[in-house]
Amino acid sequence: MSANFFQHDKALVESTAIGEGTRIWAFAHVLAGAQIGKDCNICDHTFVENDVIVGDRVTIKCGVQLWDGVRLEDDVFVGPNVTFTNDMYPRSKHYLSKETLGRTLVKRGASIGANATILPGLTIGERAMVGAGAVVNRNVPPDAIVAGNPAQIIAYVGIPRTSGPGTSSQGAATTETEVKGVSLHSLPHVEDLRGALTFAETQKHVPFEVKRLFLVYDVPNREIRGEHAHHTLHQFLICVTGSCSVIADDGVARREFRLDSPSRGLYLPPMTWSVQYKHTKDAVLLVLASAPYEAADYIRDYAEFMSVVEKKA
Amino acid sequence: MSANFFQHDKALVESTAIGEGTRIWAFAHVLAGAQIGKDCNICDHTFVENDVIVGDRVTIKCGVQLWDGVRLEDDVFVGPNVTFTNDMYPRSKHYLSKETLGRTLVKRGASIGANATILPGLTIGERAMVGAGAVVNRNVPPDAIVAGNPAQIIAYVGIPRTSGPGTSSQGAATTETEVKGVSLHSLPHVEDLRGALTFAETQKHVPFEVKRLFLVYDVPNREIRGEHAHHTLHQFLICVTGSCSVIADDGVARREFRLDSPSRGLYLPPMTWSVQYKHTKDAVLLVLASAPYEAADYIRDYAEFMSVVEKKA
Amino acid sequence: MSANFFQHDKALVESTAIGEGTRIWAFAHVLAGAQIGKDCNICDHTFVENDVIVGDRVTIKCGVQLWDGVRLEDDVFVGPNVTFTNDMYPRSKHYLSKETLGRTLVKRGASIGANATILPGLTIGERAMVGAGAVVNRNVPPDAIVAGNPAQIIAYVGIPRTSGPGTSSQGAATTETEVKGVSLHSLPHVEDLRGALTFAETQKHVPFEVKRLFLVYDVPNREIRGEHAHHTLHQFLICVTGSCSVIADDGVARREFRLDSPSRGLYLPPMTWSVQYKHTKDAVLLVLASAPYEAADYIRDYAEFMSVVEKKA
Amino acid sequence: MSANFFQHDKALVESTAIGEGTRIWAFAHVLAGAQIGKDCNICDHTFVENDVIVGDRVTIKCGVQLWDGVRLEDDVFVGPNVTFTNDMYPRSKHYLSKETLGRTLVKRGASIGANATILPGLTIGERAMVGAGAVVNRNVPPDAIVAGNPAQIIAYVGIPRTSGPGTSSQGAATTETEVKGVSLHSLPHVEDLRGALTFAETQKHVPFEVKRLFLVYDVPNREIRGEHAHHTLHQFLICVTGSCSVIADDGVARREFRLDSPSRGLYLPPMTWSVQYKHTKDAVLLVLASAPYEAADYIRDYAEFMSVVEKKA
Amino acid sequence: MSANFFQHDKALVESTAIGEGTRIWAFAHVLAGAQIGKDCNICDHTFVENDVIVGDRVTIKCGVQLWDGVRLEDDVFVGPNVTFTNDMYPRSKHYLSKETLGRTLVKRGASIGANATILPGLTIGERAMVGAGAVVNRNVPPDAIVAGNPAQIIAYVGIPRTSGPGTSSQGAATTETEVKGVSLHSLPHVEDLRGALTFAETQKHVPFEVKRLFLVYDVPNREIRGEHAHHTLHQFLICVTGSCSVIADDGVARREFRLDSPSRGLYLPPMTWSVQYKHTKDAVLLVLASAPYEAADYIRDYAEFMSVVEKKA
Amino acid sequence: MSANFFQHDKALVESTAIGEGTRIWAFAHVLAGAQIGKDCNICDHTFVENDVIVGDRVTIKCGVQLWDGVRLEDDVFVGPNVTFTNDMYPRSKHYLSKETLGRTLVKRGASIGANATILPGLTIGERAMVGAGAVVNRNVPPDAIVAGNPAQIIAYVGIPRTSGPGTSSQGAATTETEVKGVSLHSLPHVEDLRGALTFAETQKHVPFEVKRLFLVYDVPNREIRGEHAHHTLHQFLICVTGSCSVIADDGVARREFRLDSPSRGLYLPPMTWSVQYKHTKDAVLLVLASAPYEAADYIRDYAEFMSVVEKKA
Repeated sequence: MSANFFQHDKALVESTAIGEGTRIWAFAHVLAGAQIGKDCNICDHTFVENDVIVGDRVTIKCGVQLWDGVRLEDDVFVGPNVTFTNDMYPRSKHYLSKETLGRTLVKRGASIGANATILPGLTIGERAMVGAGAVVNRNVPPDAIVAGNPAQIIAYVGIPRTSGPGTSSQGAATTETEVKGVSLHSLPHVEDLRGALTFAETQKHVPFEVKRLFLVYDVPNREIRGEHAHHTLHQFLICVTGSCSVIADDGVARREFRLDSPSRGLYLPPMTWSVQYKHTKDAVLLVLASAPYEAADYIRDYAEFMSVVEKKA
Repeated sequence: MSANFFQHDKALVESTAIGEGTRIWAFAHVLAGAQIGKDCNICDHTFVENDVIVGDRVTIKCGVQLWDGVRLEDDVFVGPNVTFTNDMYPRSKHYLSKETLGRTLVKRGASIGANATILPGLTIGERAMVGAGAVVNRNVPPDAIVAGNPAQIIAYVGIPRTSGPGTSSQGAATTETEVKGVSLHSLPHVEDLRGALTFAETQKHVPFEVKRLFLVYDVPNREIRGEHAHHTLHQFLICVTGSCSVIADDGVARREFRLDSPSRGLYLPPMTWSVQYKHTKDAVLLVLASAPYEAADYIRDYAEFMSVVEKKA
Repeated sequence: MSANFFQHDKALVESTAIGEGTRIWAFAHVLAGAQIGKDCNICDHTFVENDVIVGDRVTIKCGVQLWDGVRLEDDVFVGPNVTFTNDMYPRSKHYLSKETLGRTLVKRGASIGANATILPGLTIGERAMVGAGAVVNRNVPPDAIVAGNPAQIIAYVGIPRTSGPGTSSQGAATTETEVKGVSLHSLPHVEDLRGALTFAETQKHVPFEVKRLFLVYDVPNREIRGEHAHHTLHQFLICVTGSCSVIADDGVARREFRLDSPSRGLYLPPMTWSVQYKHTKDAVLLVLASAPYEAADYIRDYAEFMSVVEKKA
Repeated sequence: MSANFFQHDKALVESTAIGEGTRIWAFAHVLAGAQIGKDCNICDHTFVENDVIVGDRVTIKCGVQLWDGVRLEDDVFVGPNVTFTNDMYPRSKHYLSKETLGRTLVKRGASIGANATILPGLTIGERAMVGAGAVVNRNVPPDAIVAGNPAQIIAYVGIPRTSGPGTSSQGAATTETEVKGVSLHSLPHVEDLRGALTFAETQKHVPFEVKRLFLVYDVPNREIRGEHAHHTLHQFLICVTGSCSVIADDGVARREFRLDSPSRGLYLPPMTWSVQYKHTKDAVLLVLASAPYEAADYIRDYAEFMSVVEKKA
Repeated sequence: MSANFFQHDKALVESTAIGEGTRIWAFAHVLAGAQIGKDCNICDHTFVENDVIVGDRVTIKCGVQLWDGVRLEDDVFVGPNVTFTNDMYPRSKHYLSKETLGRTLVKRGASIGANATILPGLTIGERAMVGAGAVVNRNVPPDAIVAGNPAQIIAYVGIPRTSGPGTSSQGAATTETEVKGVSLHSLPHVEDLRGALTFAETQKHVPFEVKRLFLVYDVPNREIRGEHAHHTLHQFLICVTGSCSVIADDGVARREFRLDSPSRGLYLPPMTWSVQYKHTKDAVLLVLASAPYEAADYIRDYAEFMSVVEKKA
Repeated sequence: MSANFFQHDKALVESTAIGEGTRIWAFAHVLAGAQIGKDCNICDHTFVENDVIVGDRVTIKCGVQLWDGVRLEDDVFVGPNVTFTNDMYPRSKHYLSKETLGRTLVKRGASIGANATILPGLTIGERAMVGAGAVVNRNVPPDAIVAGNPAQIIAYVGIPRTSGPGTSSQGAATTETEVKGVSLHSLPHVEDLRGALTFAETQKHVPFEVKRLFLVYDVPNREIRGEHAHHTLHQFLICVTGSCSVIADDGVARREFRLDSPSRGLYLPPMTWSVQYKHTKDAVLLVLASAPYEAADYIRDYAEFMSVVEKKA
């Protein structure tokens, strides 16, 4: 550790584990056990307890306290008056042990908006963005944008919506998308007085042999599903009633697709990271898959997904 | 033709084409061109026009008229005051030609309940039963029971309902049914706070390779779908939302199944006559099929289906 | 039996059991076993089978058939082309035995409107009125008016509606009605930001000690409840949500009340014949009663009720 | 009257007021007081009471009775087993006087489908068509097609639907129609995140000064409104929520318009016969009018409307 | 008062009324008039105005201000950045007098979660828990857990749910509960095609004479009702439609009951503290009571209730 | 600027642009570039950045930061822990330029409640009041009171509700209100079996010639409409289905009216400032106007409206 950090003369800094280039401002108070990385900015009226680790290039705006158990990875932004917690049911003079306190992990590059409240025991994913005033009582996935009290996912960072081809009664149309290998399919659709019928044939519309299918339904609007990629599995998604949004990500491009018609199919090739959310109450998502379930085919961590993508590149 | 039929002395019979054993009662009036089969019973106050053909063992109760263009096959029952028609938009003194009048065909073994009204141009299928007071404005499929104004299918003749296995969260269960080769499947089902998921794998749950799928939806409650068998196609049906009833018939046994859960599947092997009806408004029926569409595989006539069944037996 | 009945010379009357003063018109056909009472009118084109008994002063309009198993009590009116039945699932040449055929009983003073259809096995109650064109597939209670396909109760014979007092936020108001002892009560009603509250105190609002209460709910719109009187029981009815109609009858006056507010109560003293019907889907009727259940206190037959009324008068 | 009519030798004709060219068939019975016009066809098993007047070229199919009080104008068609009535609440042995019986008037050119039931006291308008099996309990307007139990208007004879201009966000568009002077207006419509706004200005969009407006709402689907023309009144109709259909008729052309958007207006100039029907449950129809209410401005009889049209031509 | 409290050298403490063992940390500022009890913990960046009284063993986390009018009883926990208020409609330079400012009372043992906002003039009951980020605009009852913006009661501290007996069609069943004298009753219930019927008789099912009843309905989900006990009144509760939750507390045991069927009754004897909440939108709660309204019978304060309980014990 | 301001000795004030009479309290930190007006009160633990301008008589309670880009006009109140922002999507170490940062403007006399969060780039209107704990993500109109997360308008400052006359079936009734020239009208209303009808005639019910009308619909509950006055236009408002609230303000008196019946009209004369809000989902507001659209007739700024009112006075 270096003494090459700036400390305002009205600041109270008891720790020596402060990284180079970090600035600590007036009326801030850093306890002796805290570890703070390089090039951080710790603003006025902040308080940092002992069992706290802060990465590099982190900004802590005014009025924030970092309690025992808080971990902020590199490049995190914490807005003014953001409030962390470490005890779900606090009572005066009842102290949690190191083992039982609710730890908070804010991952690399995440931002927490002004005056947000973070309940104990949660993880805020990489690059996620917590809206100002949000009250967060669930883990926030990577890249998710959450807002409200309680906070819900309202969008994902940096994803344009792709509306895809319209339905057609004449035949199937396939549209390539900006995500590698992902295609949108307008399935053949026939409608008469007796009702409507949509169909798909393997090879012709579904570009693989179907070995498994699953139906996902009764998903609360606040939930997300998916959040994984497959090494080798092909999938074909149809929202047979209601609608939901699917994010497809090849590690380079990422797009959001709204599935809102039984005659719209979305093909996801292997090595596509996918997230489903914004399900309407009545949404039923049919997923056709090219192989039986195999646990080893799943990549459930986005960082791992990226490293596989990069190896292949 | 024979003179060995009975004619009440108050009856007026101008035709000579009356089958042996047929009885014609008081105040009945049969015009010269009418042809009536054997062992029929033509009750009081009936009227039979010229261009009418009636099969054997047919009962015509009181107050019925058979207009030009009506054909009743063998063993038909026509209840009292049943009213046939042959002109959709009748106007006084506007006559339809033989070519344009609306012909009615009541097929073998069908019964028409008292005081029902049959609109022109329709076929009442074999063994169908039209409820008393019904106003029939659409064809009635074989074995269907219809009632109301307008008449809708309310049941099928002689079909017990099979409720099948309940859903299970532990694994797939298969139940053979009384219809040859038809089985009910309780698909694996997982449910947690994030929603519900049901899945099926080929071979394991779906006993064939899936080459095609179709979704049937927006079926009005009054409609029926299906009404055909396949020579070689295997099908697997899941009602993914809402519910509908499926009749499966192997030519010997016939059962009705209510599909009302995404984790209930119904397997239909080749040579199963199938009808779907009683769709709820929100029903979406997913059908997995073992081969691409091929017109020649369809058997759309029940009589033809039965003859194939019998050849195979 | 007497020969003092009139027979049109075009009528065919094979029975001799025809009452004095009865007239039978052209093209009517009465089989030998039929029994017809006095002063009846049997119009043109009617047909009366053998196992039929018709009371006195009955009118049978044109185009009607009375099949084996039909019983018409005195003073019944049968409109033109009314169609009776005696076989629920008729098939040609399948005959029901005397034991299995569906008998029809039309009770004293009932009327059946033109072209109505009566399914087998039913009873049409005293003075009931079946609307023209109705298709009746359930028993019809005494005095009920039914219409539609299928027929539903739409009213009761000879009952004016009483709208009663409005609700009041100030206190309880009591209004006597034209039915002896029956009163309508506007209960105290208080509403604030936390919701609404209605209350009733015994003596003050409910004129008896409450010994029993029951709640009636989930009543389909087509159903009726009640249809009885009590020798000694007092009742107080409140429709706490939804609404329903109550008929109260003291043997002389009869009125219909709509209960559609939790602050409207209806008091029914002993010896009040009461019927409830026209329930909305969400109707919940609260009934307060002055005594525990006692079977002997019920009068379930209207004729018996009237005889008790008359004895007391 | 002439004896030049045909009478089957099994027919019973007691009246002599039968027009030339009329045919009366077997088992028909015409009472002495009946008057029947020329070139009629009275089929088997019909019954015609005394106080009945039938016009020329009328067809009466089998099984029909014409009761006292029935009037059929020229060119009427009455299908088989159609049932008329003349007593709303019939009781055996209670007879209505000539003054109180419910008369039925079927106007020139109307047709009544097979087995329909016509309640007492109604008028079936010119050229109207009653569907087979219908139970008619309300007057049927001229040219209306009714069906069901109870019968509702389902269409009008010979009216094409005009879908009119789409809505436009840019400004008002006016489209002349095939009905003289009637125009469809696409009103200016602006929609943003705060909601939608439609407006209309007099002169600019509404081609008259607005002196009166009315709102029509809570109209049961089975009802029709309007059915009149105005001598001098201009009207402008907008269905502000829900939808309804408007028939506009200038005496020569007649068209049906569906109003289903608050930005669609329909202008009806004076001397336009107009009918509104097929209201959705939530329909609210706004009518702007050019003058205060004046009874004398209304033409409520279509025949009178036509005579005024012809005078002006 | 004692000088035996700890004051950080960066703290500004102008009051001398600080209890023994209390610690006041850096950048905290306590004005001269404030009174603070023993063993409190007043963290960094807090501010305590003059007209403030704080009990013993209270924790005030960082970033909290205690304004004039705030009273914190013993053992209260105030989380970081919790914000109190004392002026409902603040305007710059408009000062409230001591009489008009909105006082806040946080009662013994309550906890206020991080970053919660407490509107002026409220009481937070004993042991209540305000969730992190909640915005509290109504009094919080003792033991209630509230969350959200605005805050609603989501649970009560330490209350197990009692599901009680199922409904039975055979007769009444009574189940004693862990709350003294409180019993759950499964009322007799009969259901057939005509609907369902539940009833209760006094003595037999309702263990007292019913002198009063009231119906509680249209209660917004966010509301609670009740929150009192009675010295002598017996009550019997039935939720006749919809559902609600009732907490019953005898001063020793406390349980929550869900009333969700018209055939479930809950008997509350005298000296039972009761709270109703979580009403569904359509809930109608019927309460039978053993006596007319009498104000003196109510115990509206939980502490008073407890003292009466203890006297009786 | 003057040195006549008070600075607590624990305060850190680097700016000299501080107005006379202003007080700055302990642990406050004002950067050098900040400009603060006269008679302000800057409480403990506040932080004021450089690019900040604060008017006169402004109160800044504890725990507040004013970031670059914040402008507070005279007489603004900022409650404790209120949190401003200037970057919609903050990331650590990504700085906005002076041009791109989100500026906040709080206009004269507005108050921001405790712990509220203000998103970047917004204007809080004159005298508006932001509720405690609100998260404001849209501009707040003058005088509006907002609350919740996200904040919605719940009321306007200082407006009593006027319930107006009930509907009447007999004729039109007019009620003057406390707002100059504004009147409530009970329109004639007729209801029969065919539905309900309300009408209004110009002069008789609507006190001007109608030259224009518009319909406002699909307004989300959170929206407001209107917010302007007219120099010369007369308007008449009817909420034809659903309901909404209208604020009418003559510059002296201001009242709120609920329009919830098609037979209630509200007349607004020229020079009436009007706002509409609290629309139900199905609300359709019909506005009749006395002249075609003319942009120059609109006064869209309340201050300008007041100055015109005063000139006229």
